[in-house]
Formats: sequence, structure tokens, C-alpha cells
Amino acid sequence: MDFSSFLTSLGTSFLIFVILMLLFTWLSTKPGNTVVYYPNRILKGLDPLEGGSRTHNPFTWIQEALSSTEQDVISMSGFDTAVYFVFMSTVLGILALSGVVLLPVLLPVAATEKNVKTSTNTSVGAFNDLDKLFMGNVQEKSPRLWAFLIGTYWVSLVSYYLLWKAYKHVSRLRADALMSPEVRPEQFAILVRDIPRVSEGQTRKEQVDSYFRAIYPETFYRSMVVTNNKEVNKIWEELEGYKKKLAHAEAVYAQSKATGKPEGARPTNKTGFLGLIGKKVDSIEYYNEKINEQIPKLESEQKVTLREKQQDAALVFFTNRLVAASAAQSLHAQIVDHWTVTDAPEPRQVIWKNLKIKFFERQVRQYIVYVIVALTILFYMIPIGFISAFTTLDNLKKLIPFIKPVVNVASIKTVLEAYLPQIALLVFLALLPKLLLSLSKAEGIPSESHVVRAASGKYFYFSVLNVFIGVTVGSTLFTTLKAIEKDPNSVVTLLADSLPGSATFFLTFVALKFFIGYGLELSRIIPLIIFHLKRKYMCKTEAELKAAWYPGDLGYATRVPGDMLILTIVLCYSIIAPLIIPFGVVYFGLGWLVLRNQALKVYVPSYESYGRMWPHMHKRILAALILYQVTMFGYFIARKFYYAALLIPLPIISLFFGYASSQKFYRFFQDAALEVVCHELKEIPNMEQVFRAFIPKSLGSEKIDDDQFEDALSQVSRTASFV
Amino acid sequence: MDFSSFLTSLGTSFLIFVILMLLFTWLSTKPGNTVVYYPNRILKGLDPLEGGSRTHNPFTWIQEALSSTEQDVISMSGFDTAVYFVFMSTVLGILALSGVVLLPVLLPVAATEKNVKTSTNTSVGAFNDLDKLFMGNVQEKSPRLWAFLIGTYWVSLVSYYLLWKAYKHVSRLRADALMSPEVRPEQFAILVRDIPRVSEGQTRKEQVDSYFRAIYPETFYRSMVVTNNKEVNKIWEELEGYKKKLAHAEAVYAQSKATGKPEGARPTNKTGFLGLIGKKVDSIEYYNEKINEQIPKLESEQKVTLREKQQDAALVFFTNRLVAASAAQSLHAQIVDHWTVTDAPEPRQVIWKNLKIKFFERQVRQYIVYVIVALTILFYMIPIGFISAFTTLDNLKKLIPFIKPVVNVASIKTVLEAYLPQIALLVFLALLPKLLLSLSKAEGIPSESHVVRAASGKYFYFSVLNVFIGVTVGSTLFTTLKAIEKDPNSVVTLLADSLPGSATFFLTFVALKFFIGYGLELSRIIPLIIFHLKRKYMCKTEAELKAAWYPGDLGYATRVPGDMLILTIVLCYSIIAPLIIPFGVVYFGLGWLVLRNQALKVYVPSYESYGRMWPHMHKRILAALILYQVTMFGYFIARKFYYAALLIPLPIISLFFGYASSQKFYRFFQDAALEVVCHELKEIPNMEQVFRAFIPKSLGSEKIDDDQFEDALSQVSRTASFV
Repeated sequence: MDFSSFLTSLGTSFLIFVILMLLFTWLSTKPGNTVVYYPNRILKGLDPLEGGSRTHNPFTWIQEALSSTEQDVISMSGFDTAVYFVFMSTVLGILALSGVVLLPVLLPVAATEKNVKTSTNTSVGAFNDLDKLFMGNVQEKSPRLWAFLIGTYWVSLVSYYLLWKAYKHVSRLRADALMSPEVRPEQFAILVRDIPRVSEGQTRKEQVDSYFRAIYPETFYRSMVVTNNKEVNKIWEELEGYKKKLAHAEAVYAQSKATGKPEGARPTNKTGFLGLIGKKVDSIEYYNEKINEQIPKLESEQKVTLREKQQDAALVFFTNRLVAASAAQSLHAQIVDHWTVTDAPEPRQVIWKNLKIKFFERQVRQYIVYVIVALTILFYMIPIGFISAFTTLDNLKKLIPFIKPVVNVASIKTVLEAYLPQIALLVFLALLPKLLLSLSKAEGIPSESHVVRAASGKYFYFSVLNVFIGVTVGSTLFTTLKAIEKDPNSVVTLLADSLPGSATFFLTFVALKFFIGYGLELSRIIPLIIFHLKRKYMCKTEAELKAAWYPGDLGYATRVPGDMLILTIVLCYSIIAPLIIPFGVVYFGLGWLVLRNQALKVYVPSYESYGRMWPHMHKRILAALILYQVTMFGYFIARKFYYAALLIPLPIISLFFGYASSQKFYRFFQDAALEVVCHELKEIPNMEQVFRAFIPKSLGSEKIDDDQFEDALSQVSRTASFV
Repeated sequence: MDFSSFLTSLGTSFLIFVILMLLFTWLSTKPGNTVVYYPNRILKGLDPLEGGSRTHNPFTWIQEALSSTEQDVISMSGFDTAVYFVFMSTVLGILALSGVVLLPVLLPVAATEKNVKTSTNTSVGAFNDLDKLFMGNVQEKSPRLWAFLIGTYWVSLVSYYLLWKAYKHVSRLRADALMSPEVRPEQFAILVRDIPRVSEGQTRKEQVDSYFRAIYPETFYRSMVVTNNKEVNKIWEELEGYKKKLAHAEAVYAQSKATGKPEGARPTNKTGFLGLIGKKVDSIEYYNEKINEQIPKLESEQKVTLREKQQDAALVFFTNRLVAASAAQSLHAQIVDHWTVTDAPEPRQVIWKNLKIKFFERQVRQYIVYVIVALTILFYMIPIGFISAFTTLDNLKKLIPFIKPVVNVASIKTVLEAYLPQIALLVFLALLPKLLLSLSKAEGIPSESHVVRAASGKYFYFSVLNVFIGVTVGSTLFTTLKAIEKDPNSVVTLLADSLPGSATFFLTFVALKFFIGYGLELSRIIPLIIFHLKRKYMCKTEAELKAAWYPGDLGYATRVPGDMLILTIVLCYSIIAPLIIPFGVVYFGLGWLVLRNQALKVYVPSYESYGRMWPHMHKRILAALILYQVTMFGYFIARKFYYAALLIPLPIISLFFGYASSQKFYRFFQDAALEVVCHELKEIPNMEQVFRAFIPKSLGSEKIDDDQFEDALSQVSRTASFV
């Protein structure tokens, strides 16, 4: 890629971003669009257009984002989102502080070097103007390389300092969350799994109750045995579906009365497959009938479920959150894989069907999933390597000579060269997250947030290994394969050798991601279009309308690994091609702004894990840092600069730093510290309410009397004191 | 070593054992010796000679040992000792069950093989009659090797089965111990370390009390801040020394009145170095004076210690053992390396000076100790290899030709050949335990039993690596060094190649250990002689007499690794030279009997860790098993039997077995399970007594009023309810 195509790519991206931002400014002030641009505020019962949002100033949202405090983020979007911003600003800090020192020093050092042609790193594309600013421009063994070596240390030290500060800060945030005087149901419950077989003449409920009442005579409140809800969920969902359809039909009928004939046209539907075949019936009557059929079916299934489908897991409730926190950390049974306890997840994120999975089965599942993921990474690597090698125009031309005339047209060539490989990569990556999420769920993890963390970890390793290493090595595949054949030892310096060749590729990749990615994010063009289409053609009731605009959450499972990939790329190139640092700074700076806006106004978190995501982010930033340090070592060796040995302590320091920080902070992210949860509550908890929060919707009809829950849900402890 | 020298060695050992056993029978019935042979019974207030011990039948003690139950062991010697017997009987079971199948099968298979001279394993000594019974006698690639391969599996399966059963049994034992209705002070306390700095205007005691009272408002009883007792201990020990000397002098004086002149001879001593130089003074007066000097010094130092030498560790007492057990497992502080809690060790085994060591310092110390131990193992290996190579007579003759005439005298040669290498080895090994114990203590471990476990683990790896591998490879050092030079790949089969050559060495080693070792153990000749010498020439007072016969404990730190070494040797040779199995069975059978006798009558445990030793034993038996499996694989390969590949799953199964058993049982050996400690106590605990049990002797003078403890020991919580 030459300099002009790089500039074209940058320019186009920027132009698209500006257009999208202007679109956002214009669209977001239209009253009909508020539910798309301010759903979070609306759901919180706030005025969507409060503050400066009414103006047509395209920078107002930036002002608002900048002036918002961490407390605003917490109150609008929860602690997990606040932690995400700590992540963003920490990374931003690392890159900005690195750039401030590295750019003014390393660029001149590289650019003023004379003897250009000795460089060995011209494998991909011809040498061009940009490359003059890279480390590859400095002669081998040159004393100028000292500046780059010191730069490597500087980036590492800045990272350690900011990461340590961030861990402390997040730990404080988590403590604030856990000591909050609000009554949160999950703080009063523990999740018990692997309950041993019931002895003769005892029900599961009696077994659980007597076990915990013996240990916690004063603070045990009640237990809820987990049931197999598959059947009852199915019936309940059908019922809810019919209810929705009935409401829809009634709305259609009412509308037809208002617009057409005064007696209206009663809507009809067909009973067969997808409403396309079968007998034609009156919808309102049909659905009413169906609902009346389903209700008794649901009720009887609820009873059957509660009585006969009990499983060997339970939620146990305590009248005191300190006891619950302590209980979740203590060993209860002499045989460790019986009565295993953990803290209860939030009711909304419990994955009920995973709770019954047994101790050793969970571990076996985990290892199986790891093996599958490892294989996936391995087998994705090969096609990605080829894709990136093929999608380089030069290679394409070599391989498919007949496309030459087309791509040699200057303008087409420029655009293709700028975007082709990056788009191929982005599309490819979009296929994976669903797979990783369902694999993580199959591990037997009990909560959604934990599944997201697990999936995001897998995705990170996947993207670093495949995208970064795959593209880098792949892009020089044709040239390097021969080299390896000649000298197998060169594998060790393979990555380091390939890095400079892919520098411009990644520059463009980062630029594409931030301008186009964040432009689309901010303008919400796609959700807007979908919303308006749905409103026009499908939604008849208020509930349907709400479903059409109801926003998702931030989507950590893919967002965090995406950011991590950018960070990895920017870190690894920070010394080799310091020009990438400003791009990284813009990516994280712009991301911070856009997402701050989205967090305050758009997204609604679907769970709250009180910052448990942080240790994963921390670990992965560190992994990226170590990859950077090892790569730099390899690159210095490739540049025949043997003081590179001075870099050997760096990865060791990083490992030690990771060890020390996890020793100092990590356990608090697993368990609730007692000094934190012993803070006073603002009111005496209503235990009935706490308990009911955990009843799955499909079991929690108002019609069902409390005494029917006795079977699986156990009675209120008679000795319980409500303190 | 030829067959006759092997028989000589066996015969001599057996003869010595019989003599020692007869000596024991004769000596133990003498009334003056009861304190040497029955100290444990005497200290427990039981009649030492109850039961059949009065008879002169040399087998009575065996009867008694066999008829004793596990409960007897527990009541006489505690749970740790009972766990030790589980270890002994498990190993005995493994070897016996292996032997029952392997001996009748493998010995004939090997002995009936014709073609002897093809074997390559004749490196040490000439081929002899014994070797015919070994696997080395079977031809390479022979289908007879299948029997040995199946034998390898048999030993492994037997081990898994018995180990699993044993772990279950020990877990049950530990549960029994922890749920006992006795009030044990350590069950009501937790150890708190890494207490953060005291804030202004607060004392350490207030800080600790307010912290724990906030978390445990109802069950917190009191805290005891750990102080630096170095000075006060020194003064207290001096005082106790003077008191003893005074008592001694008074006894001497009284005796002189009784035996000599009626007015008696007042004893005198010199005040200088070791009582050898300096002014001669009247002992009774001198020591009285010294005592009167020391007492006020002690009292003032006690006050200073309690007030000014407080450290950042404390013992915290609860009125409820369930709360204490739960507290010891829970995270208390948001910053994980502050307020770290563990369960309190027994008062008698607390290592006070280690308590103040900080979290990260402990970890750094641990790694430093590991490095030192690794270096020690490495540097001991070299001399041991040479010693065992040199002490083989054939090698000695080669190296020091002038000793030939001496060692060629048949009888001298036989004895030397039989014992020289083994004795050299035993002496060498005796030097190490002290070093390992003090190294383990330097790690910052808070209790004696933990130090013993840590030292015993180090000693195990040391002895296996150095003795077993060192001797085996060392004995063929001269022949193998050349082979390695020629073909570096042979290192992998080095151990397997060397094994058969050392088989008879280890047969003799095991025999020596059990006949002589257990003979000395049972007869207690050395303690008996020392006791009688002391009684005659040194002891004047009752206290001095008691100190002279007071027995030690079983000495796990060296005993367990010693047993483990034998087990490793026997396991590794079980297939190659099945003849070793009966020796192993006798070693552990005889050991079981002799130590059962000693546990019931002699040794007094110096601490109780409720079976925490077991996971270490389990892990090391498994390590020995894996070493055995790997060695066998190597040996089969060396015999060119390529179905050896079928052995590859074995070490993997072992690792999995180890993982599964530690997952299922291990945590209960770290933490007290709540279902266990929630059992009722037989009485309401006297918290004052529980608290006082932890006051170090040097601080716990009766003269000191309770209010003086306020500084470091905190007052009784006013809200505490004594339940």
C-alpha cells in the first residue's frame, strides 16, 4: 500500500464519520426518534431531551459525555458499565502517555536515518514514504535503536502504573456497589449445587431446609429447590405468545373500526404452519380460546414441576447479607463435591438449566469446551492466513492474473487496496461470537454475566492469535514459507520479521474500526431503520412498539475483545511504527465519547456483576503487554541489536506484576469481603420480596397460592428473626 | 553382590532383630525401665504394665498391637497418629495385593526363560542366581513380557482403589475429630495477619476489636494482639533455668544431709563461663538471688511487651466454633492482602515469631526457600552419586588397588559388600532433616505441624531424586558415562537401564532398614542407656527425671519421607524384580506392628493437626506411582518391547486420579466443613479458659492481673453472649 491509498482510506473513513455524526445530530432531535436515541432515559422515567440535546449543535453530545461523572454512569447504566469506562480510560491513558513521549522522540530518530535500502523488511509492497517513519528505517545495529529500546520500557512502565491504579479504583467501585444500603435480592441468597441424594422418607425440601437450619439456626430464612422448568417454560411462552397475538388482533380490530367501516373488520388468521396454511379462523376468538386452553395446562404443569421435577440444586435465603456472603465462601460438606455453594447470581441472569449439572460434569464439560475452542482457533487460523494473503492486491494479481486490468484502474485499485482485506477480516470475525457464547454456556456456568466473561476471554485469545498473528504471518506467507524451508530456526523471528510489513494494514484497520464503527454506533442508523419499518408494518400494540425500540446492552462479549484486539495491535506496533499510537488514542478517545453517550442514553444493561469483568480485562491487557514485549525482543534480535537482552526482564516483570495484582485484588472479585457487606442497610429487608424475586416467571403466576410453593420452595422458617 | 553375600546380609539383619526383640522383652518388664517403655501410658495416668505386658513372652507386644483398634490409637496418640497408620496399612495393602498376584506369576515366567546371556543389564557385578528371578532374565521382545506389562497395570489399579478408600476413611476420621463435643481452644479462634496500620488516636487492640465486632456483633468474644516476645522469652527462660538449678542444688543439699554429715554440704558453683571459671559461690543463695533479680525484670518486660511490642497479627476469639470455622474461610478485607485470616493452630504449636511476617514477604520467602531446596537437591546429588559408585566394592578395588588384599578376605568382603554402601547412604541422609525443617520454618508458616508437612515434602523429593535416582544412575556411572558420550539420546533410557543393576542393592537397603531400624526402634536401646546415665549422674529432682525419660513424638518430618522412599523403591522394582515385594510387605508390616506398640506406649504427640498430613502422603504415594509408571515405560522400551506404548495412559490416569481426589476431598483438609463443626458441644465453652490457653508461658504469670492484658489482649466484649 502506498502513501496515497493510505490517505484515501483515512479520508474516506473520516468523511463517513462526519456524515454519520451530522445524521445523528439531525435525527436525534426529531421527536419520533427519541425512543431510538434515548431509550435508557425513557425507561428510567427521565425527560429524553433534557439538557442541551434539543440544539442542532453537532458537538452537544460530546459536551454532555465529557461533563458526565462516573456516578452518572453508575446510576444510569450500572457498575459494569462504569468498569468498562475505567478500562477505556486506562487504555487511553496508556496510549496517550506513551505517545507523548514516543512520538516526538522516535519519529525524528527514524526519519533522519540516511541509509534506507539496507532494511530487510520490504517483503510486502514496495517501500514508501510512510515506512520512513518506522523503526525498520533505522539501520541494523545502529545506536539509534537505544531510543526504541528505552521506549519499550517506557510503554511497559506506564502500563503497570495505570493498571495498578485502575485495579485499585475498580476494587473501590465494587466495594461501593456491594456495601450499598439498597436491598439487593442476590445478596441475601446463595446458590447450592450438588446436593446429595435424598434419604428415604424425606423430601428434597426437607433435606435442604434441615441441612441449612442446623448450620444457620438464626439466619436461615427459606430455600427454593431448583426445578426442571423446560415444560412449564414452553407452555408459558406459548401462552404469552397467544396473549400478544390477541392484543395485536384486538388492536388491528380497533384500528379497522377507527379507519374503515364503523363495525370494523375482524382480523383472521390460518391455524397451520406459520399462519400460511390451514383453516381460516377469527383471530380474537381463536386466541381467546387458545389462552383459555393454556391457562389450566400451565397451572397443572406448574404444580407437576414444583412437586416432581425438583433437581439437586437450590437457592438458600438468609435474613442477613453478611451471613449469606460468608456462607457463599465457606465449605459446607465434608465431601467437597457435595453441597457446593457459590454466591447467587442476580435473578435475571440465572441460567436455570445449568444449575443441575454436577461438579465433575462441570469440569469435564469445561475441558471439552477448551479443547473445542483450541481446535476452532487452530482451524480458523489457516483460512484467515490465506484470506489475508490473497486479499492483498499484489498477491491477488499474482494469483489471478486476469483481474489485472480491472484493479489497475487507479480509483478502483485505491479503494480495493484500502478496504478489501479489512472488510474480509471484519466479516469473518462477525461469525464467531454466537458460537463462543453457546460453548461457554455449555460449560455449566450458572449466570449470564459469567458466560459473557468466559466467551469474551475465548474471543480475545481467538482474535489475537488469528487476526493479529494470523494476518501478520499470513501476509508474508509466500515469502516466508521458503525462508523457513531453508532455515527452520527462522520460525522464532518469523513474527518479528513480518510485523513491519503489516503495519499499514493495521493502521487502516484501526482507522476503519473507529471511524466507521463508532460512526454507525453513534448514529444508530440500522436500529433506527428497523424501528421505523417495524412501527410502520408490524407493531399494533404498545408492548410491540416497546419491543421494537427496546435497546440491548453494551455487548461486552464482543466489544471488549474487539477493543483488546486494537490495543494489542497498537501496543505491538507502538515502537516499530509509533505513528499507530495516535490512531489508538483516537480509537479509545472516540470510543469513550461515543459509548459514554450510548451508555447514558441508549443501552440498558441486561445484568449487573458488580465489576467482575475487570480482572479479565486486566489479565488480557497484561497478556497483550507480554505479547508486545516478546515481539519487541524478537524484533530487536531481527535488527541484530544484541542489547535486546536487556528486554528479557520485561515479560518476567509483567508476570510478576500480574501475580502480585491478582494476589492483592482478585479474591475480592470472586467473593464479597465481609468488611464491605457488614455495612448497614437502609431498611429491614422484606424477605418475602427477596424470595419472590427469584421465582421464574413461568412459575410465578399471581393465581398460584403461596402454599403451593411449599414443595419446592420450602416454608418460612419459624425461628427466623427478620433482622 | 552374589547370592551368598545377599543371604549373609539378610541373615545378620534378622539375627540382630531377634536379639533386639528379646532384649526388648527382657528390658521392658524391669520396673526401673517402665518410664522408657511406657511413658505415654504413664503420662496418661494409666498403669504401664496393664494387660499382658508383664509376661516374658516375646510376642505379647505383637498381640497387643494387633488387637488394638483405631479408637485406641486415637485416644492414646491422637488423630495424626491414626492417619499415619492408615498410611501404613494402605501401603501394606498395595504391596500385599500386588505381591499375591505378581509373585506366583512373574517369578516362574522369568525363571523358566532359557537364553540368559543375551541380557544387557549386567553392568554391576556378575550375573548371579538372584538375577534369574528378575525381568532382565526375559529375552528382549519376548511375548513373556506381556505378563510384566499386565502386572504394571495391576499394581496401579490396586493403588488407585486403596488410595481412594483411604482418602475417604481419613476424611471421615478428620470429620470425627472436628465434630468432637470436646471444647478445643483452636476451634474457637482464628488467626488474623497483615493487619493494616493503626489510624491516629487508636490502639491496635481497639482497631482489631472494632473491626471484628462490626462484622460479628454477637459472636465476637475478644482478641489477642500478637507481641514480639523475644526479650520476655529470654528473661523467662533464664528465670526458669535458675529455678531448675535451684531445685537441683536443693536436692543435692538434701541428699548430702541424708548420706553424709547431718548438717550436709552446701553445693557451690562458679559464676563464670559454663560454671568453670569465676568466683565460687553458694549455689542455693546464688540462684535465689538471681531469681529474685529476674522476677521484677520479667514483670516489667511483660508490661513493656504487652504495651509496646504489639505486632500486626492477632488471634480473634469467637463464642461459637461454627462462626470461627466460617470466619477462617471468608474474605474479610476488600484488599486481599490485608486482614488475612486462617484457622488458628493449636496453642502449643503456634510459631509466634512467624505471625508478623507480611503477606508478600511470606510468598517471597517461600520462593527463595524453594530455590535453596532445589539447589540443595542438585548439589547433594553429585556427591551421593559418587559415594554410591565408590562404595561398590568392585569400583573401590578398581580405584584403590592396594585395598584388594584386605577386601578379598572372604568374610570381610561379604560384610563390607553387604553394608558399606547402605550405611554410607543412611549416614548421609541423617544430616539433612534439620536443615529442611529450619528452611520450612523460614517460609513464615504459622504452625509446627505445617512446618513438618512442608519439610517432609521437601525431604521426599530430595530422597527420591537423590537416593533412588542418584544411586541407581550413580552405580552405573562409570559404564553409562561413556554410553552417553556416544549417544546422547540414551539419557532417556538411562534410569531404566540402570535399575536392574541396583536391584540387589535396594533389596539389602530395605532389609537393613526394617530389621535394624525397627529393631532399634522397638528395643529403645539408645534412649534407655541415655536415661539410665542421666538418672545416675545428673538428675536430682523429679522434674529433671521426667525430662530425662520424656519421649518425643513419632517424628513425621523424617519418618514419612523415609517410608515413602522405601515405597518408591519397592514400587519401581515391583515388576523388574518382584522379589522385592515381600521385603516391602515385611517393612511396612513390621513397621505397623512396631510403631503401633510405640504409639500406644511410648511416643507422645507434640501437636494435633487432625489428619492434615494425609493429602501430602496421598500426593507423594501418587508421585511414586507415576515415577514407577514412567520408569516401567522406559524399561519396556529398553527391552525393545514396543507394546510398551500401552503403558502411556497410566501416568495420565494417575494425574487424573490425583486431580479428582484432591477436588473431592482436599478442601476439607484445609478448611473445616460447616456441617461438621455445627455439631453440639458437650458443654458451654469457658471462653476465659479458651482465651488463656493461647497466652504464651512467658507472658502468663499468675501474678499478672487480668487488667494488665488489656493492652494487647483486649477486654471481654460486653455484648458477648456465652453460648
